Amino acid sequence: VIDRDLHDRAIVIDALQASNWDRELLEDFKAGGITCVQVTIGIGIHIWDDARATLNLVAKWRRLFEEYADLIVPCTSGDDIRAAKAAGKTAIILGLQNATLYEDDVELVRVFADLGIRCVQLTYNIPTLLGGSCYEPDAGLTRFGRNVVTEMNRWGVIADLSHVGEKTGLDTINFSARPVAVTHGNPWSWFNHPRNKSDELLKALASRGGMLGLAPYAHLVGEGVTLDVFCRMVAYAADLMGVEHVGIGSDLCEKLDQQGLMDARMGRWTIEPEYGAGTAAKPGWLPFPDFYKRSADFPNLTAGLLAHGFSEADVLAIVGGNWLRFFDDGLRPA
Amino acid sequence: VIDRDLHDRAIVIDALQASNWDRELLEDFKAGGITCVQVTIGIGIHIWDDARATLNLVAKWRRLFEEYADLIVPCTSGDDIRAAKAAGKTAIILGLQNATLYEDDVELVRVFADLGIRCVQLTYNIPTLLGGSCYEPDAGLTRFGRNVVTEMNRWGVIADLSHVGEKTGLDTINFSARPVAVTHGNPWSWFNHPRNKSDELLKALASRGGMLGLAPYAHLVGEGVTLDVFCRMVAYAADLMGVEHVGIGSDLCEKLDQQGLMDARMGRWTIEPEYGAGTAAKPGWLPFPDFYKRSADFPNLTAGLLAHGFSEADVLAIVGGNWLRFFDDGLRPA
Repeated sequence: VIDRDLHDRAIVIDALQASNWDRELLEDFKAGGITCVQVTIGIGIHIWDDARATLNLVAKWRRLFEEYADLIVPCTSGDDIRAAKAAGKTAIILGLQNATLYEDDVELVRVFADLGIRCVQLTYNIPTLLGGSCYEPDAGLTRFGRNVVTEMNRWGVIADLSHVGEKTGLDTINFSARPVAVTHGNPWSWFNHPRNKSDELLKALASRGGMLGLAPYAHLVGEGVTLDVFCRMVAYAADLMGVEHVGIGSDLCEKLDQQGLMDARMGRWTIEPEYGAGTAAKPGWLPFPDFYKRSADFPNLTAGLLAHGFSEADVLAIVGGNWLRFFDDGLRPA
Repeated sequence: VIDRDLHDRAIVIDALQASNWDRELLEDFKAGGITCVQVTIGIGIHIWDDARATLNLVAKWRRLFEEYADLIVPCTSGDDIRAAKAAGKTAIILGLQNATLYEDDVELVRVFADLGIRCVQLTYNIPTLLGGSCYEPDAGLTRFGRNVVTEMNRWGVIADLSHVGEKTGLDTINFSARPVAVTHGNPWSWFNHPRNKSDELLKALASRGGMLGLAPYAHLVGEGVTLDVFCRMVAYAADLMGVEHVGIGSDLCEKLDQQGLMDARMGRWTIEPEYGAGTAAKPGWLPFPDFYKRSADFPNLTAGLLAHGFSEADVLAIVGGNWLRFFDDGLRPA
C-alpha cells in the first residue's frame, strides 16, 4: 500500500520517548520504521539527578549501544540520522527532561555535550536554577539560564521547552541564538492543559526556526483520541506555525509502573502527593491511543496524515523531515 | 562610663557575620561583649554547597566548638544564649546564606536542623529551587519553597530573606506560620540598593513578628558612613517597623580575600565576572566603617545608640534583646 511505501522511504523521527527500554522496545523502533528517537535517559527519580548520577546514566547508555549495536547507534548530528536510515538502525539522541545535570555549573554544558547529551529540557515540573515550570508562577529565564543557553548554543545542545513555563519559554526563544524546541506538547488553544503551549509561544517558536513535537499523550490531547482527531490537531498546528515547524514527539512511556510515575512527579520536593500532568482523580498512567500504543505503530501516523489530505511532501516533513532539518543545524557545535 | 556598663549588662547579638574565623576573631567576640552570633558557615565557593559538602562544614564547626570551647558554644535556643551570657562565652547559631544544602529534598530540613543548622537564607544572589533573588525577576516562593518553609517552621529553622527577591520575601512573610528575618540588610528607602528592603516588605515583616538586622556594610549603607548616620538609620527603621523589630546584623566579613569574594558572587554559574552587591567600578571589599571594623567594636554601637537618644530599654532591645525574643520563639521546634 502507498502509505507503508511512503513510510518506508521516510526519515522517521520521534522527538521524545521516555520508556524503560529493553530489547523488545528497541526492536519496536525497527518494526515502526523509526530512524531517530530522542530518548529521556533518566526517568522516575532520576529526573532529579545531578551531574554525578548523570555520568552513571551515560555509562548505562554506553552499555546499551554496545549490547544492542544491531538495533541502535548514538546520534549527535543530522548525518548520524541519515547513516542510521541507510543501515536500517535507529539513531538515538540522548536527552534529559531536566537541567539538574548541570547543577549550578555553566561549564558542565560543554562536558556533557562531549559525552553525547544533546537535548536538555530547562525545567521539569518545578522551577530550576534556569527558569520556571509550567505549573507555577514563572519570572522567566534567569541569568544562569541565559549563561546555560549560551553554552548550549555553542556546543550543539537543543534547549527543550516542553515542561517550561510561558515566560521562561518566550525568553528562551528570544534569547537563544539558535532555534529551540518543544519536543513533546500540543497547542493549548486546541487542548487546554498547562503543559500545552500558547499560540503566542508557538508562533514565536516558529518565527525563530523552532519545532513543535505533537504528542498523542492522553493528558495532553484527551483520552481516547482517534487518529483522525490527532491528524486534525497536526493540521491545526501546521496552520498556526507553518507545516515546516511541526513534527511528532510522542512522549511514549513504556514499561514504567505507577511508582515510577509518582517518583518522577514528586521527586523529593514534596511529602504530599503531586500529580504533574495528571490529577488526583486520574493519578495513574492513561493508555496511549490505539493508533500509537507502541513505536511499531508509527506507520499509522503516516497513513493518517496522508488520509487527512496532507501532500506526500508534507507528510515526509511532519514524520521526520522537519526534525532532521532542525537537528542538522541544532546539533552542530557553533 | 555609663554606655560600657550598659553594654556589659546587655545580651548582645550580631545576627550575621560571614568571616573566616580563627582564634583571634573568636576572641574579638569576647572583647566586643557579643553574646551570640549567627555565623555563615559556608562562604566563598561553599555558599553553593550541596548536602554532602554541608556535612563537612558541620564537621568543621564540631571541631571549632571543641578547639575553642573556652570562647564559643553551639546555640539552638534562646536559653543557650542566656547560658552563654552567664558563662562569658559567645553562643554560635550555625547558618547558611543559601538553601542549596537542602538540594531538592524537603526532608533534609529536619536532618540538618538536628545537626544544628538553624538559620537558612532562601536564596543567595541567584534564584534557587525555593524562589527568586533580589538581583533578577522573581516569581515568588515556589511550591518546593512552601514545603521547605513549612518544615523550617516545624523544626525551628529561621528563614532568612536578606538576599531574597521582593516577591519571594513577601510570599514567605505571609506564608510562614512563624516570624522570619532579614538578618542583614537596610531599608531601601534609606539607602537605594537592590539588596535593601522596601518599606512594604519591612512593614509586613514587622506585622508578622519578624526582625531586621541593620548592617554597617558599606555597599548597603554608603562608604564612610559615620556612627551618627548609622544610628539615624536605626531610628528610621525603628520608626518604620517599631523599635521591637530592629537589631544588628553586621555582615562583617573578616580575613577573606578578593578571590573569596568573587567566588561567592560567581560560584560556577557564570564565566563573565559578576559583582553582587558591588560593581565593576568597585569590585572589591569595601572597608567597614571605623565604628565597627571588628567584633570588638560593638560597644561603639551601644554608645552611639544611647548618644542618639534611644532609651536604655530601647538600646538593650536593639543591641540584642529583640533578637533574643525572636530566637526564643523561632529556634524552638513546633
